[in-house]
Amino acid sequence: MARSLSVPSLPAAVSVREVGPRDGLQNEPEVIATVEKVALIEALAATGVARIEVSSFVSPRRIPQLADAEEVLSAAAIPVGVLVSVLVPNRRGLERALALRERGEGRIDQVTVFLSASETHNRKNVNAPVAASLAAVSSVIEASRSEGLRCEGVISTAFGCPYEGHVDPRSVLAIARHLVDAGAQEVALADTTGMANPRQVQSLFVAAREALGGEVELTAHFHNTRGAGLANVLGALQVGIDSFESSVGELGGCPVPPGATGNIASEDLVSMLSELDIRTGVDLDALIACAARAQELLGRPLGSHLLRAGPVRWVPEEL
Amino acid sequence: MARSLSVPSLPAAVSVREVGPRDGLQNEPEVIATVEKVALIEALAATGVARIEVSSFVSPRRIPQLADAEEVLSAAAIPVGVLVSVLVPNRRGLERALALRERGEGRIDQVTVFLSASETHNRKNVNAPVAASLAAVSSVIEASRSEGLRCEGVISTAFGCPYEGHVDPRSVLAIARHLVDAGAQEVALADTTGMANPRQVQSLFVAAREALGGEVELTAHFHNTRGAGLANVLGALQVGIDSFESSVGELGGCPVPPGATGNIASEDLVSMLSELDIRTGVDLDALIACAARAQELLGRPLGSHLLRAGPVRWVPEEL
Repeated sequence: MARSLSVPSLPAAVSVREVGPRDGLQNEPEVIATVEKVALIEALAATGVARIEVSSFVSPRRIPQLADAEEVLSAAAIPVGVLVSVLVPNRRGLERALALRERGEGRIDQVTVFLSASETHNRKNVNAPVAASLAAVSSVIEASRSEGLRCEGVISTAFGCPYEGHVDPRSVLAIARHLVDAGAQEVALADTTGMANPRQVQSLFVAAREALGGEVELTAHFHNTRGAGLANVLGALQVGIDSFESSVGELGGCPVPPGATGNIASEDLVSMLSELDIRTGVDLDALIACAARAQELLGRPLGSHLLRAGPVRWVPEEL
Repeated sequence: MARSLSVPSLPAAVSVREVGPRDGLQNEPEVIATVEKVALIEALAATGVARIEVSSFVSPRRIPQLADAEEVLSAAAIPVGVLVSVLVPNRRGLERALALRERGEGRIDQVTVFLSASETHNRKNVNAPVAASLAAVSSVIEASRSEGLRCEGVISTAFGCPYEGHVDPRSVLAIARHLVDAGAQEVALADTTGMANPRQVQSLFVAAREALGGEVELTAHFHNTRGAGLANVLGALQVGIDSFESSVGELGGCPVPPGATGNIASEDLVSMLSELDIRTGVDLDALIACAARAQELLGRPLGSHLLRAGPVRWVPEEL
């Protein structure tokens, strides 16, 4: 039985944050040439996305793919309207970011720090208990803020852990509170391995808003591992979330489970938002061209739907 | 800003109708052996899906892949709890269905008729104007009902046409009304080339419910062409739609646009419903095994997400 149309209103505009150059590429085994990364980042910046996560100041031994963080940041010409964010795993990473800025070799607007809500995932990811990561990350936030950088804290496995299963929402909210108290202006709840469902998304974001107050920006970071990425976006939109992280081409993802696809594709996200009459400021054709470039760069078919099907639009030449 | 959680309630249970053996296979160029189709259908029937669209009594010249409709229906052992439906494009097709039943060589519970809401798509698909198709289809419905068969009318391109673009909802509702007046007990609104968005889905299904009354079953038939298939499912669930057509492995789709993926994958649908605590009666593991069988049969990677990632669940052996 269809009920009356008492569905929630959706935001009029959404901020799309591109994480492909960092989150999308970091697990790619073949190291991509710096010049190619820079070209992709510049093309992405020209699409009108609100922010780009350009690279990570992680140890080059841990992630050789991102060892050229300094070179990429120095070389990429990104319009001032597009925020430049970098992932910073620890104080050493922050020092690298600050040194680059000091030398006047690259613009950095924001640092993104992260930890997992699940003990097992956090241990496997960064070899530390959650409490230790939280202390370390908070100190990075404080130092970053004192240097005038904006801070985003990403809580991985916020909707479930591939090792532990259920993740207690109270743990997620406690971590979020701690990040905000340390100075984070933005908290992203990340569905690292695609375990979220729309009901859970709505419940956790509403609880986070209540727990953190209206000042903190709440961002949704979904993966399309089980095909429900855009359904989770819809769920988040319906409770007023208006900033999303996504990855061009559906690049990225977590090595667990093996073979799984990655982040929601930026172009699939922008397509649905556009069809919902939600403004993003992003040029969808230009974004699809970026996805094509990423696919060529990696030499294998990517998960992106828009890359195969093209935008929803009238095709009069086919008549 | 997150709003309060005033999101609509969802149905407690959903009926999943498998269309892979017909809609999924019909565009496959390599003809699959009848014995393989029968094995897939029997495996699907054992998963607990509510209904299976087993084949089509279409002209064997038009769709050689489904030329073995009689053989498939005769051979497949389908539990009585699972409804058997067949696609019937015209009176000749209905005669074949009735003759098979007459000879006691196969069970048929339901016939499915179809036409497009868009003139151009209908002409390209069945070489007739919409009005002519509507008259022909209505006569098939009347004849089928008088023979005691249940009738479903599928309205293709209900959410948009790849040739014409926008499709007027009033045309869709007028066709639906006509089908119901002819005797159809069920109307499916089909997003044939993946142009729907959740807002449109909610609006059209609510309008259809108002136009057709509470007696007619309304079914959603979505494609994942642009990645929003499960978001559209969520939209439909929120306005009370509780029957969905889907295709194992994400098989199927329309030749327009070329390269596009197909129907929403049954296993991706069942996974999301299950995570939403909505009952389907379907054994997800068994359904994933069917998708693996379909993938092996076609010899190429299918679009299904669950087939790659597996179900959302605790993986203790990885600890």
